[in-house]
Amino acid sequence: MVAETPAPVSIALVHFPVRNKRGETIGSAVTNLDVHDIARAARTYGVHRYYITTPYVDQQGFVGDIIGHWREGYGATYNPARKEALEIVRVVDGLQEAIGELTAAYGQRPLLVGTSAQPQDRTIAFAELGRMMTAGQPVLLIFGTAHGLAPEIMATMDAVLPPLKGGTGYNHLSVRSAVAIILDRLLGR
Amino acid sequence: MVAETPAPVSIALVHFPVRNKRGETIGSAVTNLDVHDIARAARTYGVHRYYITTPYVDQQGFVGDIIGHWREGYGATYNPARKEALEIVRVVDGLQEAIGELTAAYGQRPLLVGTSAQPQDRTIAFAELGRMMTAGQPVLLIFGTAHGLAPEIMATMDAVLPPLKGGTGYNHLSVRSAVAIILDRLLGR
Repeated sequence: MVAETPAPVSIALVHFPVRNKRGETIGSAVTNLDVHDIARAARTYGVHRYYITTPYVDQQGFVGDIIGHWREGYGATYNPARKEALEIVRVVDGLQEAIGELTAAYGQRPLLVGTSAQPQDRTIAFAELGRMMTAGQPVLLIFGTAHGLAPEIMATMDAVLPPLKGGTGYNHLSVRSAVAIILDRLLGR
Repeated sequence: MVAETPAPVSIALVHFPVRNKRGETIGSAVTNLDVHDIARAARTYGVHRYYITTPYVDQQGFVGDIIGHWREGYGATYNPARKEALEIVRVVDGLQEAIGELTAAYGQRPLLVGTSAQPQDRTIAFAELGRMMTAGQPVLLIFGTAHGLAPEIMATMDAVLPPLKGGTGYNHLSVRSAVAIILDRLLGR
């Protein structure tokens, strides 16, 4: 599962549309640690861009404030490693904006690869996705907050990675843990 | 790296003695999300016990309050999956208390396996540790908060896993991400 010179990989953390515990479509709030933990994991594994998608202007402002503190404010001198991680973060309205930016940057539309704690249609195995990346396919890995990506956004994915299994029936990883594990499976060496 | 029927694995998150950014030995504060995220990952991968080690009585009380809310309080009915994850958490004074409990439970002292973002002596490869687990060796995986386990505790480890590499020079994963990745490498299927 190790790509020698992988094609560009970006990730997106979706806050709308996602599901709540009753399966209804909602928008979730951005949490501080989703910004930091996922940026640090993404930077570790050489991810090109980490998009935080939310249509809510107040939430976009909140993330902008966090990033500003660590990229240009006191945090940048206090903790340069955090600045380096947060440099790959972008805040966007939705997935379309991220796809547009990446298509321009990569010269082709990235493969949209969803993630889910439940089995989905169009499953792609980790090894198969790794092979496609090695062969030059740019990828956007897409993660849902709350109880996962809503069906209307899942339906737009080109492929979906299988649920992470740990040898138990328990499948309630935090999205932070899921991102770290999936990046390690695809890009760890 | 997949063990078919692995021996019991427990984990410990150490809050003293750990290093600060200047390399001095300190005690760190327990954070709420270290309790939750790591308990969820541990439960996913079938970890037996998740020890939170701190000698500070106020911190022990803080963790006790969190666990109580989700195990017996309102949280237990609101989110039964969280209750299930937190059931494996134990708060202890230090590593010795955890080792004593596990030695009694397993009928033998577990192998003490440290983790670090820097290369250490007595490195054990993931594949080698996986083989030992498959062969029946109980293991206690030990993680440091702040800037990692202090040298005086690192010196007591039987073996240390290599730093996690992501194909970049950046090695500033959160301890939450590191736990998730290491459990997946040893126990993911």
